[in-house]
Amino acid sequence: MKISHIEHLGIAVKSIEEARPYYENVLGLTCYNIEVVEDQKVKTAFFKCGDTKIELLEPTCEESTIAKFIEKKGMGIHHIAFAVEDGVAHALAEAEGKGIQLIDKAPRKGAESLNIAFLHPKSTQGVLTELCEK
Amino acid sequence: MKISHIEHLGIAVKSIEEARPYYENVLGLTCYNIEVVEDQKVKTAFFKCGDTKIELLEPTCEESTIAKFIEKKGMGIHHIAFAVEDGVAHALAEAEGKGIQLIDKAPRKGAESLNIAFLHPKSTQGVLTELCEK
Repeated sequence: MKISHIEHLGIAVKSIEEARPYYENVLGLTCYNIEVVEDQKVKTAFFKCGDTKIELLEPTCEESTIAKFIEKKGMGIHHIAFAVEDGVAHALAEAEGKGIQLIDKAPRKGAESLNIAFLHPKSTQGVLTELCEK
Repeated sequence: MKISHIEHLGIAVKSIEEARPYYENVLGLTCYNIEVVEDQKVKTAFFKCGDTKIELLEPTCEESTIAKFIEKKGMGIHHIAFAVEDGVAHALAEAEGKGIQLIDKAPRKGAESLNIAFLHPKSTQGVLTELCEK
């Protein structure tokens, strides 16, 4: 697959309201969007940093995978998302052909209307990995 | 502080030899350097991805903080490193003044001869955070 850059980093936080002052007042980044992604049960806050976005992920309910992640591992970096130039569907097929376990068999819509799909951390050296394209 | 971009992501792996085929053959990235950082007890492998590097971290002994991280949390993203434009010493002083707990009170030399310093995850919303400059 052809990766151009890291599109975003997903970071699990208990509360965007509590996390935002660190990202804005200490790191000096600017929150330019807050969005709820219903089907992922998360509220997201976006900060731009070079060509990568930092996406804070706050669980909207206890059943959210982000709530479970925080319960198990604590707050912290949840996933890495790569921007693919040759399309998510193509990249998924290629990854599967090389033995990678897919979480999403086909691209779906994520935050900011990107086409996204996740690879399983069991086959990506422990890192929950997202592929995305505009 | 003035952050220009994410300089690198540190990812803890048990073995660079085992992880490298995923990064090279599946993601299509190129390993351009392998380096041992003695005082951090790690072997590192570098891949460029847009303006960010991916830095695989393999423990060189059981006392390595990376070995302890893997034991506790499993393989995965270990830290995020921001490139600061106004110098690490200045950024550290500013962060401390804003109540951030420092791991390094002053900049020290890291991989690739960068000046680096770490902020404690207790005060950075759970993310082990590195500041660095060339």
